[in-house]
Amino acid sequence: MNNKICYTPIGIIHSPFQKIAGVPIQPSGAIGIRGSIELHKKYSGGLKDIDGFSHIILIYNFHLSSKFSLKVIPFMDNMERGIFATRSPARPNAIGISIVRLLNVEKNILHIEDVDIVDGTSLLDIKPFYPKFDNRTTDKVGWLSGKENLNEIRSDNRFK
Amino acid sequence: MNNKICYTPIGIIHSPFQKIAGVPIQPSGAIGIRGSIELHKKYSGGLKDIDGFSHIILIYNFHLSSKFSLKVIPFMDNMERGIFATRSPARPNAIGISIVRLLNVEKNILHIEDVDIVDGTSLLDIKPFYPKFDNRTTDKVGWLSGKENLNEIRSDNRFK
Repeated sequence: MNNKICYTPIGIIHSPFQKIAGVPIQPSGAIGIRGSIELHKKYSGGLKDIDGFSHIILIYNFHLSSKFSLKVIPFMDNMERGIFATRSPARPNAIGISIVRLLNVEKNILHIEDVDIVDGTSLLDIKPFYPKFDNRTTDKVGWLSGKENLNEIRSDNRFK
Repeated sequence: MNNKICYTPIGIIHSPFQKIAGVPIQPSGAIGIRGSIELHKKYSGGLKDIDGFSHIILIYNFHLSSKFSLKVIPFMDNMERGIFATRSPARPNAIGISIVRLLNVEKNILHIEDVDIVDGTSLLDIKPFYPKFDNRTTDKVGWLSGKENLNEIRSDNRFK
């Protein structure tokens, strides 16, 4: 039941953010910020057809998050919330997801935009974003309701 | 660079689907199908505030996918596509994501709907779905363009 599940990074994400503090909150807070994915060459064949998509989902490891908390005060709030009700990196399994814009692909390099990820992050998976699969109309969004100041907020070191 | 990244499951997903064949394609092909998450009790504290959200993102391990291919013929197509341009389970890292409806929470059990996941799947993470973070308007959706027959398609054993 508690057996570990192990993955091997498929590549590295490059971005302008060298440390945790100052990273935008979510791709929607990082519009226009460019980065790239350096896919390990052995996986290049898996990129066929991906340039047909304007947006891709990246799944990666929060490599700078070394401990987890079941309760955290998120960057966008000043109250303690359950970790699974937040997008904080201090999770039991430090897995992050970001939906970014795919600009173009050159061999094993993917140029991307709206990047809210620290430079050097290990990439675990890439999936195509498809609105019919991935967009939702929600009835309720909990404590995030009314949080509209995404562009004014940046991360700090609280989850380091 | 090829160091493994290991995670410990936080719980188990229960669903009506006992085997790979016959599972709906994506939550949008599984509307109304109910299941549950049995979170390991040690993580229950992390569920605080989650009942405020109508939708949650599940990240899990495709435990029945034992090999990967860089090119696959997806369930929704009859042509070979690069694995990263598909949502096929036969990925280098067999990570799946599903956005499901959260019905209610009882202690460490989350009742969910729109479940496209095989029974017994190991859960790695739960995140709140927030439209401002997660919905996108796309310019192009590649080979998925015009695929409208989601409700008629079910999985088969091709990726077993």
